[in-house]
Amino acid sequence: MDTVLIIGYIAGALTTISFIPQVVKAWKMKETRDLSLAMLVLFAIGVLLWTLYGIWAGSLPVIAANVITFVLILVLLFLKLQYK
Amino acid sequence: MDTVLIIGYIAGALTTISFIPQVVKAWKMKETRDLSLAMLVLFAIGVLLWTLYGIWAGSLPVIAANVITFVLILVLLFLKLQYK
Repeated sequence: MDTVLIIGYIAGALTTISFIPQVVKAWKMKETRDLSLAMLVLFAIGVLLWTLYGIWAGSLPVIAANVITFVLILVLLFLKLQYK
Repeated sequence: MDTVLIIGYIAGALTTISFIPQVVKAWKMKETRDLSLAMLVLFAIGVLLWTLYGIWAGSLPVIAANVITFVLILVLLFLKLQYK
C-alpha cells in the first residue's frame, strides 16, 4: 500500500475516532446543550455526500471514514434531541 | 467541472460550514463544557492529515475543505480552553 493511501487511512481513522469521545461524553453526562444542532445536521449531510464522492472518486479511505462517521453523528444527533 | 468534483465541493462546503454554527454558539454562550477536548484534538490532527492526503492525491475539494475546517477547529479549541 502506498504512502498516500496510508496517510488517507490514518486521517480517516482520526477524524472518525474523534467523535467517539464526544459520543461517550454526551452519553455519560446526559448533557448536549453546548453542541450545535445546526453543526450536527450540516455535518451529517456533508458526510453522506463525502461518501458519495468517495465512491465515485474510487477513494477507499474517504468511503470508510465517512460511513463510520455518519453512524457516530447519527448517535450524537439522537443524544442531542434526547438531552436538550 | 464534472459531477464527482461538484459533489466533492458541496460535501466539503457542508462539513466545513457545519463548524461555523458551533463556533458562533461557543463564542456567544461562552460555554464549551459539553464539547469533548479529545474530539477537538483528534479532529484537528486528522484534518491536517486529510490536507496532506488531498495534496498528494491531487484532490482539490479535500484540500480546500480541510484547510478551512482546520482553522475553525483551532478557534473551537481556543474557545474550549478559554471557557472550561
